[in-house]
Amino acid sequence: MTVVPLPLEQTVPGGELIHGAEGGSVVRRSVLPGGVRVLTEAMPGQRSATIGFWVAVGSRDEAEGQHGSTHFLEHLLFKGTRRRTALEIASAFDEVGGESNAATAKESTCYFARVLDSDLPMAIDVIADMITGAVLDPAELEQERDVILEEIAMDSDDPTDVAHENFVAAVLGSHPLARPIGGTPAAIKAVPRDSVWEHYRRYYRPEELVITAAGGLDHDIVCGLVLDALRSAGWDLAEDAAPVERRSTQRAEITGTAGLHVVKRPVEQANIIMGCPSIVATDSQRFVMSVLNAVLGGGMSSRLFQEIREKRGLVYSTYSFASAYADAGYFGMYAGCTPSKVKQVLELLGAELDKLAADGITEEELRKAVGQLCGGIVLALEDTGSRMSRLGRAELVSGEFQDIDETLGSIKAVTAEEVQEMARVLAAAPRTVTVVGPFEETETFGF
Amino acid sequence: MTVVPLPLEQTVPGGELIHGAEGGSVVRRSVLPGGVRVLTEAMPGQRSATIGFWVAVGSRDEAEGQHGSTHFLEHLLFKGTRRRTALEIASAFDEVGGESNAATAKESTCYFARVLDSDLPMAIDVIADMITGAVLDPAELEQERDVILEEIAMDSDDPTDVAHENFVAAVLGSHPLARPIGGTPAAIKAVPRDSVWEHYRRYYRPEELVITAAGGLDHDIVCGLVLDALRSAGWDLAEDAAPVERRSTQRAEITGTAGLHVVKRPVEQANIIMGCPSIVATDSQRFVMSVLNAVLGGGMSSRLFQEIREKRGLVYSTYSFASAYADAGYFGMYAGCTPSKVKQVLELLGAELDKLAADGITEEELRKAVGQLCGGIVLALEDTGSRMSRLGRAELVSGEFQDIDETLGSIKAVTAEEVQEMARVLAAAPRTVTVVGPFEETETFGF
Repeated sequence: MTVVPLPLEQTVPGGELIHGAEGGSVVRRSVLPGGVRVLTEAMPGQRSATIGFWVAVGSRDEAEGQHGSTHFLEHLLFKGTRRRTALEIASAFDEVGGESNAATAKESTCYFARVLDSDLPMAIDVIADMITGAVLDPAELEQERDVILEEIAMDSDDPTDVAHENFVAAVLGSHPLARPIGGTPAAIKAVPRDSVWEHYRRYYRPEELVITAAGGLDHDIVCGLVLDALRSAGWDLAEDAAPVERRSTQRAEITGTAGLHVVKRPVEQANIIMGCPSIVATDSQRFVMSVLNAVLGGGMSSRLFQEIREKRGLVYSTYSFASAYADAGYFGMYAGCTPSKVKQVLELLGAELDKLAADGITEEELRKAVGQLCGGIVLALEDTGSRMSRLGRAELVSGEFQDIDETLGSIKAVTAEEVQEMARVLAAAPRTVTVVGPFEETETFGF
Repeated sequence: MTVVPLPLEQTVPGGELIHGAEGGSVVRRSVLPGGVRVLTEAMPGQRSATIGFWVAVGSRDEAEGQHGSTHFLEHLLFKGTRRRTALEIASAFDEVGGESNAATAKESTCYFARVLDSDLPMAIDVIADMITGAVLDPAELEQERDVILEEIAMDSDDPTDVAHENFVAAVLGSHPLARPIGGTPAAIKAVPRDSVWEHYRRYYRPEELVITAAGGLDHDIVCGLVLDALRSAGWDLAEDAAPVERRSTQRAEITGTAGLHVVKRPVEQANIIMGCPSIVATDSQRFVMSVLNAVLGGGMSSRLFQEIREKRGLVYSTYSFASAYADAGYFGMYAGCTPSKVKQVLELLGAELDKLAADGITEEELRKAVGQLCGGIVLALEDTGSRMSRLGRAELVSGEFQDIDETLGSIKAVTAEEVQEMARVLAAAPRTVTVVGPFEETETFGF
């Protein structure tokens, strides 16, 4: 398998050609002065483009007393800059029918927009202004504190969200990735403006910034627009500055809490998650994990769906999943069922994982899972947003760009033995279980 | 404005050319033997396609004692045919990475899939088999009854869903469109197999069937594949059969219940909807309604968002919306806020509508709303799924196909005066209000 390590030399204009094919899309990467990285994928024939400005900071990076400040800051960047009011920022995208938003994650924050190709210069100008010129007006900040509390209340009314948050907190224990991205209501009420400002000054700098774009675009033009926008904002872009190094990908010791965690909620349906710590994002076994998840809980033909929904009618929704970060990750199985069936569904989830470990998968299941993953990847490529995200992950997470054929090759190379071996590791790990529903916290479900 | 009335003559092969442009997409429509309608949009350069099989029946068409049977039947079509087991149906799409699903609506049911263009023949074969060859096995049916009850329980745990369902029931009163699509738990527990079977036999017939597809495809090939699949299933396709006529678009008398409806739920955030009956789907004023919604509650720069979230920090989410059906429709404004602020938010929602009626909109707001709608329409065109749906709506709802330039022209023709006049009508109508939250049902919020 040949992957292209992302080149670190400064190569503007033109950029390093990472991948290109006659008639297909072309991926380029440049490191601009200041250490600002720009990765683009020009897709011939596309009339739209999606662009994202990434800062390599997420909730895991927050110091004690600053929990929730990454997400708080993300909100505040929409509240006005030295050049624009909040209304002007919102209007800029609305009036061209564009979609703009931001996402705070555990290891990154991304401000993105999808617009017609002719509106890309506007999108770059506005997002660059938000990144460079935020004012964090104290009165606006106080009002936005209430908006964030409303957002947290909304999520807290979603029992599936509650189950996932509780499971992750339990399975990752004291690791910073265990914390909820948005912070707790108490943390949000307490965080002072100084903390948010300090967070902004510390991380929103050229060497932390990665810009990725895909669609109808020209790499050199995007680089030029980015450079102009950052320079005119007064950012100091030293010719010899280098991007910050990627996070350590050394797998951390995880001291999660195995066993049952019951969260009492007056809802009609119980939400169940069972899982354990697992591989990190750069693990070469990640393609094995993808195949395992496709077979176990990746679609309507998966084992969990067939066994728990189709054969027994116990659930509407059931699936398995894996989330992987720089130095930690986890695997889980989800099911939502009527409260009286929790014990039975827990047994079935555990039994399916055990069966996968004991008996492995058939060649037919392997063939179908590979087809499912490969088809899904090719279908996703028609979307400029998923290509933009892929570039961001390549730069921030894996440090290398895999073209599609290489990714498909990695999936096709997975063997049934590898899947069974991974299932054995997962099945042998102590299990963390979260159940959200109308139960007392002393409930055991025979677990 | 020139729209193309959908031609009813039988024109297979070749189909009636409805819209085509050099280098652009080409829309064709054919009526096959049996009265089966096929509309396709060939998009040059696309490697995928989305196809939908529509039956012009929805929850509104259910007789007393059969409520929920449209949605029940939709589930059962995935449970096996004379030729395929449930697992074979699921596997067919999963193993090529396709996305397949179905949607039961109030006036139609659609079975759809997005696949690589080379997998389109498979998709047509499998969906046609589901439509023509369902067996409704009694044991499978009993199990699926439980799955549907789980689906209803899941929706019932979502307070925003509950607010919308309750609002629609109140605002449309005794009209069949007022009923929830999935039926009530009691109705689902009671509906006998005979009712579902009768529903299937009555509506799943050639003259009810509309097939729409968009992406990398050829019209004649799609028609041929559909015809082969239906014939080999033994469907009687009479050469002279005509499609069923569209629903009456005569606006119905609506006797909804104005005033306040409180639904008690132990949640952290109150969910509020305020609105009234409004225009039907074919109303020429629908473009005016689109502009009104864009200005009032269509994005981050809209009046509701700016007033209630940005200026006051009272909500995380607020927007306005309109839903329109053949003979009825409604308009509404949504907000989610902390329970103690319901009275204030209700006053603000009402005041914004009143202000729109009293003062109208500025030319600047009109310009921005038109830009927002036009940009959004052009961006949506890159998605084969939204083109597939557009063809379905053209055939089933409006009976005419508008090409993009015509649609953009209709939006650009809207005047500020028309928007104000529509706002006056909405503001003058008796208001229906639903509040879901931790309140007693006697709570008045000063309303």
